[in-house]
Amino acid sequence: MLKLNTTYIKSFVSDDEMANIWPRMEQAYDQIMHGTGKGSELLGWRDWPETYDKKEFARIKRAAQKIRSSSGVLITIGIGGSYLGARAVVELLGDYNATEALFVGKDLSETAYRRAMRKMGDRDWSINIISKSGTTLEPSLAFDVFREKLIERYGRAGAKQRIYATTDAETGILHDVAKREGYAMFTIPDDIGGRYSVLTAVGLLPLAAAGVDIDGLMSGAREAKKHCAPEAMTYAAIRNILYKKGFSVESLAYFEPSFGQMSKWWQQLLGESEGKNQRGILPDSMIFTTDLHSLGQFIQGGPRGQLFETFLHIGQMLNEKITLPGSADLGLDYLAGKNLASINQIAYQATIAAHGKDGVPAMSINIPKLGSREIGYFIYFMEMSAALSAYVMGVNPFDQPDVEAYKKEMQNLLQPGTGK
Amino acid sequence: MLKLNTTYIKSFVSDDEMANIWPRMEQAYDQIMHGTGKGSELLGWRDWPETYDKKEFARIKRAAQKIRSSSGVLITIGIGGSYLGARAVVELLGDYNATEALFVGKDLSETAYRRAMRKMGDRDWSINIISKSGTTLEPSLAFDVFREKLIERYGRAGAKQRIYATTDAETGILHDVAKREGYAMFTIPDDIGGRYSVLTAVGLLPLAAAGVDIDGLMSGAREAKKHCAPEAMTYAAIRNILYKKGFSVESLAYFEPSFGQMSKWWQQLLGESEGKNQRGILPDSMIFTTDLHSLGQFIQGGPRGQLFETFLHIGQMLNEKITLPGSADLGLDYLAGKNLASINQIAYQATIAAHGKDGVPAMSINIPKLGSREIGYFIYFMEMSAALSAYVMGVNPFDQPDVEAYKKEMQNLLQPGTGK
Repeated sequence: MLKLNTTYIKSFVSDDEMANIWPRMEQAYDQIMHGTGKGSELLGWRDWPETYDKKEFARIKRAAQKIRSSSGVLITIGIGGSYLGARAVVELLGDYNATEALFVGKDLSETAYRRAMRKMGDRDWSINIISKSGTTLEPSLAFDVFREKLIERYGRAGAKQRIYATTDAETGILHDVAKREGYAMFTIPDDIGGRYSVLTAVGLLPLAAAGVDIDGLMSGAREAKKHCAPEAMTYAAIRNILYKKGFSVESLAYFEPSFGQMSKWWQQLLGESEGKNQRGILPDSMIFTTDLHSLGQFIQGGPRGQLFETFLHIGQMLNEKITLPGSADLGLDYLAGKNLASINQIAYQATIAAHGKDGVPAMSINIPKLGSREIGYFIYFMEMSAALSAYVMGVNPFDQPDVEAYKKEMQNLLQPGTGK
Repeated sequence: MLKLNTTYIKSFVSDDEMANIWPRMEQAYDQIMHGTGKGSELLGWRDWPETYDKKEFARIKRAAQKIRSSSGVLITIGIGGSYLGARAVVELLGDYNATEALFVGKDLSETAYRRAMRKMGDRDWSINIISKSGTTLEPSLAFDVFREKLIERYGRAGAKQRIYATTDAETGILHDVAKREGYAMFTIPDDIGGRYSVLTAVGLLPLAAAGVDIDGLMSGAREAKKHCAPEAMTYAAIRNILYKKGFSVESLAYFEPSFGQMSKWWQQLLGESEGKNQRGILPDSMIFTTDLHSLGQFIQGGPRGQLFETFLHIGQMLNEKITLPGSADLGLDYLAGKNLASINQIAYQATIAAHGKDGVPAMSINIPKLGSREIGYFIYFMEMSAALSAYVMGVNPFDQPDVEAYKKEMQNLLQPGTGK
């Protein structure tokens, strides 16, 4: 369901280099499979496609059904790992006729709040608040503001029926409020970190409400659990070999704008897993062909030895055939009757060839078609790749020790003396 | 109207280093003012805020008025410099009650085409095709597809009244078609390259149609022409000093998601102006606080000496006051009655301080408020900065010699033997 094409990487990564790093890859894989590496208390994602709570899964589907029958909009509140995965998959696979997920609490922007309110219009709506502790400022503020609006519209009792809290199973301020108020509750497992959590209730509830086939997602992830290791090890090996040679930036490049949010999820997954102890590859992203007309010059003419590309290539998107008129007056008669999609495929082939020839290492993750199983597979593949790659880089893939600095500065500015 | 705050950069860039580079900055400024540098045939943007064609400007306003009275949607077709600037300013300043600009022809994605069609619904619409030569594949294909749809809906004669072509004044396939068919025509000047063209008809027509105050934009740019040189020279100097020290990536960081498209415009402007002869700073971008919860770990814990940040800080956004309830059950009582905007300001202060202290050079471009004059000023400031910075880096700011490689590969795949 997913293949790694390394044709254009061969002039940058030799067979010898691959052979040399391979024992280290196998060791990392072992650390993951046997829980012997750093941070192994957060390995819950590894078996999750099989071990997930089937009863909760059924409850998620029922809740999604209720949301879809009662709400045109689901105000989905979360940040970081409680936000990016759901948004990414909605963008790719969301059904236009289902409930629309609008994401707030991912920033502190009044303009963003107002845009969400405007988009909501006077449709019926519900809230899904997603926060492990309930203390992260951005989602807390958004929940406070939107809960008030919900009560205004549906009354205190009515609002309670429209709030879905995805949080810790036992403790935390959000857990306590939800329990006291009787909100529907879903669990963020203790052994799965935020950036590895999209296939838990964190992602599944908003996805099911948006009409995404969550059975398909889980089934694809299960397939990946069985089969993705060789490709994930190869991908992680190439990244580490290039990193050792000084390549410091990886750009995820794709030819469908609807992958934009998935690239954000990927950036967190890789960047936060590896970026510590002054190590890590900066995860960047580019939408082609759009960015070929803005960053293409930099890629082909700028510094060598800095940037490598990982193409995300989809063999077939959803069925939306657009046939080209091929008008002669525009000089396009040679394309008459062709599908736009086939031209986009050619653009992919031309770009990877041109960049590869021009000294930019480029590999490609090929997915035969866009579907829920394929995306579930891709998600698990990337989680495995991130964990492998971080272990080989010598860091703990599952912690994020340095994210507190700005929060402390902020707390001190908001309530002088309270930031530690 | 724009100030550069360098407080947090001082531990990375000394007064001596600034003094040493300054003669080189003055030389670059001279090259721009006297047209003695490389690529000076493309210096038209320099005096444009004063020299622009006033008659065409009036025609643009009339055309925009016609579009607004006849069309709910303006299908705006362009790529690269014929796309990014207009989209950036629409995103920031577009009026929700005016004609909606939908951008197509910026990729080859059927999904993107379908989304635009779905968003258009059955509203009345017009087309603005923006292309200097008329031969760039992406906009040509989009124009071919959407022109056919326009004819289907309004008939051949009706469609002609709804097509606005922004192109070369005298030659090119789009020029010829537009002339023959009698489309309304607007000019892309010969002495202004794509990435410096947003204040020409390229950007002004879609912007005026979207309800943006284009007089304000031009007036701000005129102000910048008079006053921005010292700040632009300082910004360009700091970039070059950091670049010499090995900093290879600049991230534009902002606290308003609506700046996302502006950062794309900025990426092209800087990346394409500098990224050649194996030189250049990779332009990256981050939306805060969102990305603090995904890339924050990498920024604070990842490699040192690689990334520097340029914050884009707006003192006051449009009037959209959101007052916080400050609910006690969520632990937010200490914020009751505060505006969300004030919390976002504090987040900015906390972030620049935390990153600066943690070894990431960070400076800030401060704009007192979001308005058309301020954005016009910012655009011109950035154009001047890009030109200055590229000259100091030793490259021609106005060419893009390496963008043809993938186009040739592509042409050979589409029509074997035709790519040179």
